[in-house]
Amino acid sequence: MEKVQAKRVLVNNGKEICEEIGCPGEGKMSSSSKIYMDYNATTPLATEVIQTVFEAMQEAWGNPSSSYIAGQRAKEIISEARQSLARMVGGQPQDIIFTSGGTEANNLVIHTAVKYFRESNKQRYDEHGSPKKTLEMYPHLITSCIEHDSVLLPVKHLMKEHEAEATLVPVSKATGQVEVDDVIAAIRPTTCLVSVMLANNETGVIMPISELSQQIQPLNHRRVASGLPRILVHTDAAQMIGKGQVDVQDLGVDYLTIVGHKFYAPRIGALYVRGPGTATPLHPMLFGGGQEYNLRPGTENTPMIAGLGKAAELVNKHCKAYETHMKKIRDYLEERLTAVFEEQGIHFNCRLEGSRRLCNTSNFSILGSGLQGRLVLSRCGTLLASVGAACHSERGDEPSSILLGCGIPYHVAQNALRLSVGRDTSKEDVDLIVDDLKQAVAQLQ
Amino acid sequence: MEKVQAKRVLVNNGKEICEEIGCPGEGKMSSSSKIYMDYNATTPLATEVIQTVFEAMQEAWGNPSSSYIAGQRAKEIISEARQSLARMVGGQPQDIIFTSGGTEANNLVIHTAVKYFRESNKQRYDEHGSPKKTLEMYPHLITSCIEHDSVLLPVKHLMKEHEAEATLVPVSKATGQVEVDDVIAAIRPTTCLVSVMLANNETGVIMPISELSQQIQPLNHRRVASGLPRILVHTDAAQMIGKGQVDVQDLGVDYLTIVGHKFYAPRIGALYVRGPGTATPLHPMLFGGGQEYNLRPGTENTPMIAGLGKAAELVNKHCKAYETHMKKIRDYLEERLTAVFEEQGIHFNCRLEGSRRLCNTSNFSILGSGLQGRLVLSRCGTLLASVGAACHSERGDEPSSILLGCGIPYHVAQNALRLSVGRDTSKEDVDLIVDDLKQAVAQLQ
Repeated sequence: MEKVQAKRVLVNNGKEICEEIGCPGEGKMSSSSKIYMDYNATTPLATEVIQTVFEAMQEAWGNPSSSYIAGQRAKEIISEARQSLARMVGGQPQDIIFTSGGTEANNLVIHTAVKYFRESNKQRYDEHGSPKKTLEMYPHLITSCIEHDSVLLPVKHLMKEHEAEATLVPVSKATGQVEVDDVIAAIRPTTCLVSVMLANNETGVIMPISELSQQIQPLNHRRVASGLPRILVHTDAAQMIGKGQVDVQDLGVDYLTIVGHKFYAPRIGALYVRGPGTATPLHPMLFGGGQEYNLRPGTENTPMIAGLGKAAELVNKHCKAYETHMKKIRDYLEERLTAVFEEQGIHFNCRLEGSRRLCNTSNFSILGSGLQGRLVLSRCGTLLASVGAACHSERGDEPSSILLGCGIPYHVAQNALRLSVGRDTSKEDVDLIVDDLKQAVAQLQ
Repeated sequence: MEKVQAKRVLVNNGKEICEEIGCPGEGKMSSSSKIYMDYNATTPLATEVIQTVFEAMQEAWGNPSSSYIAGQRAKEIISEARQSLARMVGGQPQDIIFTSGGTEANNLVIHTAVKYFRESNKQRYDEHGSPKKTLEMYPHLITSCIEHDSVLLPVKHLMKEHEAEATLVPVSKATGQVEVDDVIAAIRPTTCLVSVMLANNETGVIMPISELSQQIQPLNHRRVASGLPRILVHTDAAQMIGKGQVDVQDLGVDYLTIVGHKFYAPRIGALYVRGPGTATPLHPMLFGGGQEYNLRPGTENTPMIAGLGKAAELVNKHCKAYETHMKKIRDYLEERLTAVFEEQGIHFNCRLEGSRRLCNTSNFSILGSGLQGRLVLSRCGTLLASVGAACHSERGDEPSSILLGCGIPYHVAQNALRLSVGRDTSKEDVDLIVDDLKQAVAQLQ
């Protein structure tokens, strides 16, 4: 059980000393009674990760570009982390580019695709001596309506600036999935990128990325043969890592975004690129000191990278166990909710035939007027959860456009709650928060 | 004395328990004898900073965008850090934008200047209904030849892509400074940015930024009156913070780059912007979740930001004492070097009439053939230092272009060593490394 009443872990000669501490800022509510079920918004750092960051801050503060021992130690730590991340997603160490987070990784892919299209076009022009207008001028990007803002907003920005065209594929109401056929149908000769997330943060629905890549592959063979640039394939795996298998070979993607703070790692990230700069283009957004093979310069954040590597190691060792545990707890949660609110009193928004979903996520609406998600949460004394993505927390009482896109009726979507469990959430936690929800609803009815 | 043989500091209820630990990776050289004098490459983290990061990792892991208590605590911590940074540079909290580091901050300024020029131009076009060719098409950037690569390389990239023109002003051989007159002489009607660092990392020479801003100000009044975009002024203060006064009012700049790992803070950074998006343009490079007033999205790296804030607090409290101590030690170092190698045996490359230099930096050449900087360092058993910027460590035996630019003869520049002392460097450390240099030189002669 991961409570706001956290355990302070002291790292002493590699042994842990745990000490209960009060939550800073507590006051009007007693923090000891809180149960966190918003792991899709962010996770705490694993104890082992905190220890690794702590040690690296002390022992590996040297500049990794310095040739003496303090720098070399930092360089080794970074190299080990790169290996752990590569193993986690089934790629090669040289395919991992560390970034400041998922937002940068996603922006970098979109920036690259546009640059790649322009470079390819330029080459066609040069090759033939004079401009040959077989291609339209604008790169075309395909993504889905339900992506994270760090994909949607850079795409929309490029559209506004008339630097790219884009198609935003909606999800199927039947499955909550971005359907392969819809993406394929949107492809144009100028399409240079398909970016579809691996699992949605609100609904938990897992997207058919392998199937998508398989269908794009033969198209790419034909495109390359006829001199067209190939379609690059990207997936944002933020919500999937640590909750299920993520394998770039199986997924068949060129790029995959890794976000530390969704799998008990620090707030940095990485981008998997299949052969960066060789097999797959990568155009840097930043220029500077030459770090990360010149693709992402800036003195490396060694302690955070070390922590990211440690978190990846934990996933490599325990992912199956994490997944099994979270699925058991989430299923128990849904069972308890059904028992308490009865079949006709609750709607599970994302248990859809024909699609798989994340092991830890439950999106449901307690039916009835005056039971809007935000209202219900405000009456909860124990449960910490959300009505959708944390980045959208300012949007007031508008229901989630993602749920509406999945065909959930407006009045049901308004009542939606997203609960996401973590590695340490227990059945006892579930019992407590279900009671909490029950009393909140009783107050409001 | 900050040795590679670091003290592991255990944070226990706010008290520190120090324990000597071996340096990981030690082997062929005993780490206990090493003395670090490369603080311009990077600094260790201050004990208080490590403690702050450690606590924030445990207590403030909530998503700052989440409305419940775990998120609110993170939000508060970020707000406190923003205030400390603002105080450190004499600005307002809302003028501080957290970034992943100095590289991103510098790139962001250059990106902004080019966008700003284009937007200004676009407005002129729109206003008059049809394109009015009073301005050339390309924005013009002025910077110096001795900037960090995170300024020079984005500028060169823009030139290569035909997106901007640039003038790289050399330093004066007499003073080692970028001279105000040379910058002013380089200004064109299309100039949209002047970016000159506050102090050089290799020579330690402090640049006349206040005087530069003062001369640009009346030009800007005239430019704005005649409908031209004003010239934005930026300084990269990476090397100056914690070593001397940094005050944006006195400096008169629009942007100032803050780099954590140069002042005992973590490997993130910040950009000071005088009224971002209002008084001074700031065009984001990344798009996403809306953090940092939409100017730099991405879930905030709370623990690192907390650490950056703590390091700023230390500077706010102790900067004068740090400066006094480092100057005393650096002067003692130069005194000892002169005593050991004699006036005719050593050349101090950057003690130049008419310019001030950083309190902690000494750049010198031990004269004689076969005494190239890298060779001398390789024979040192104790001293950890460098021959120039860490990012350039791969460039082999080429002497520093910065020193050559300062008029240092080739054979003298080849022998250059850059020693930079820290807050805890002692006279005993100096005695030890001067002996070390003496035996290294004796071996080589």
